Amino acid sequence: MTKTTVTAAFVMIGDEILSGRTTDKNLNFLATNLTEMGINLKEVRVVPDVESEIIAAVNAVKNKFDYIFTSGGIGPTHDDITSLSIAKAFGDELVQNQEATEILIKYYGIENINEARLKMAFVPKTAKLLDNPVSSAPGFRIANVFVMAGVPKIFQAMFEAAKKELEVGKKVKSKEIRISLTESIIAKDLEDLQNQYPEVSMGSYPFDGGTSLVFRSNDYEILEKSVKEMAELLERIKSASIISVS
Amino acid sequence: MTKTTVTAAFVMIGDEILSGRTTDKNLNFLATNLTEMGINLKEVRVVPDVESEIIAAVNAVKNKFDYIFTSGGIGPTHDDITSLSIAKAFGDELVQNQEATEILIKYYGIENINEARLKMAFVPKTAKLLDNPVSSAPGFRIANVFVMAGVPKIFQAMFEAAKKELEVGKKVKSKEIRISLTESIIAKDLEDLQNQYPEVSMGSYPFDGGTSLVFRSNDYEILEKSVKEMAELLERIKSASIISVS
Repeated sequence: MTKTTVTAAFVMIGDEILSGRTTDKNLNFLATNLTEMGINLKEVRVVPDVESEIIAAVNAVKNKFDYIFTSGGIGPTHDDITSLSIAKAFGDELVQNQEATEILIKYYGIENINEARLKMAFVPKTAKLLDNPVSSAPGFRIANVFVMAGVPKIFQAMFEAAKKELEVGKKVKSKEIRISLTESIIAKDLEDLQNQYPEVSMGSYPFDGGTSLVFRSNDYEILEKSVKEMAELLERIKSASIISVS
Repeated sequence: MTKTTVTAAFVMIGDEILSGRTTDKNLNFLATNLTEMGINLKEVRVVPDVESEIIAAVNAVKNKFDYIFTSGGIGPTHDDITSLSIAKAFGDELVQNQEATEILIKYYGIENINEARLKMAFVPKTAKLLDNPVSSAPGFRIANVFVMAGVPKIFQAMFEAAKKELEVGKKVKSKEIRISLTESIIAKDLEDLQNQYPEVSMGSYPFDGGTSLVFRSNDYEILEKSVKEMAELLERIKSASIISVS
């Protein structure tokens, strides 16, 4: 049986995002992919490379949502402390994983293995590895938490591996009505309609020259009905002009 | 007297970021600007347009950091619930602000004012308005929380207004050494150096063809010293090749 609603949170780990040195490229990728699959991303946190902050963030969300994704901090250097922090968050032990060790030796060659590279083979004892076809060093899953790299190309590849393990909910469909009115003109009508259709989440987003009304629901019949009603309503507003419904 | 360290958190409010419909453009702007000013962004949260979630997020950070910035949810439609949520987080009352009302009437013209537009004049009783030169409807400040719009152009304009009210700390300077080695080669040496210079935060970021070592500190002398030592160390590694130091 499919759960109707499956939820997720995303914890980004990295001083470089907080300092502005790096522009995040993972949030929108994850949000879009989860939405398409029928998983609702409900919360995001960005925390620094500080063990206590990583543990606090993961503990705050891990029992609240179905799945947690983390990014960053699983490389070979001293500032990569995510794996140890996650192990601690679960009261688990960080151990050298045999399978990960073999993957790294195969990738780097036995003569090029050093302590730093082997660091990437240390994962929590109860973790299951997540494939990294880009640069070999694996991510991992522990309970409902997927620990992935911060580099977008690797993050995306690991998400492909994680995907296979995710149960999905009923997909939220969205419809967009673009109008050539500022949102304050239709705000009252939109609110009335929202009250009439609590199953539909109605958002209003201004753009240069108009407003995009986005209706979202996993009850497709009710969604269509509410969009039709909004369109009719807009036609009754003298100055209203629908640009598109899609 | 200047505080050495001034900290901040950023709470983004918006279903559209979480669904992937909108790609965030404010985080990197805020992070970069705060860093340049000498304010350390320490945490970011993205929460949905749900009152209890907004209140919980703001309450979780408002006493932990010097300044909080929020984005989104201060427009005229029913899904714009940030102002009320922030008022509740502070146990304050949401009231129609005289100054904001006048600004809106001047901008829209008295004949075009409606209930939805006037909604944007409601702010917490103890709030102080933040100028919005783009579309008039103001943001506001309550205690250490700056409540700003989500539309990037307006967010940026409101940040300019907020800036004047911010006390800043000693600016963190950063130096970057780009090398043509993968980070796992220098990981051990970097860790030793980090242990030797706890005042300097040393990050290692891989890129295609090498690694960027970023050293950050507000103790400029120690920063220079540690960078010099790293450069010397790299020269001793036979295969090391410094691309640039900046």
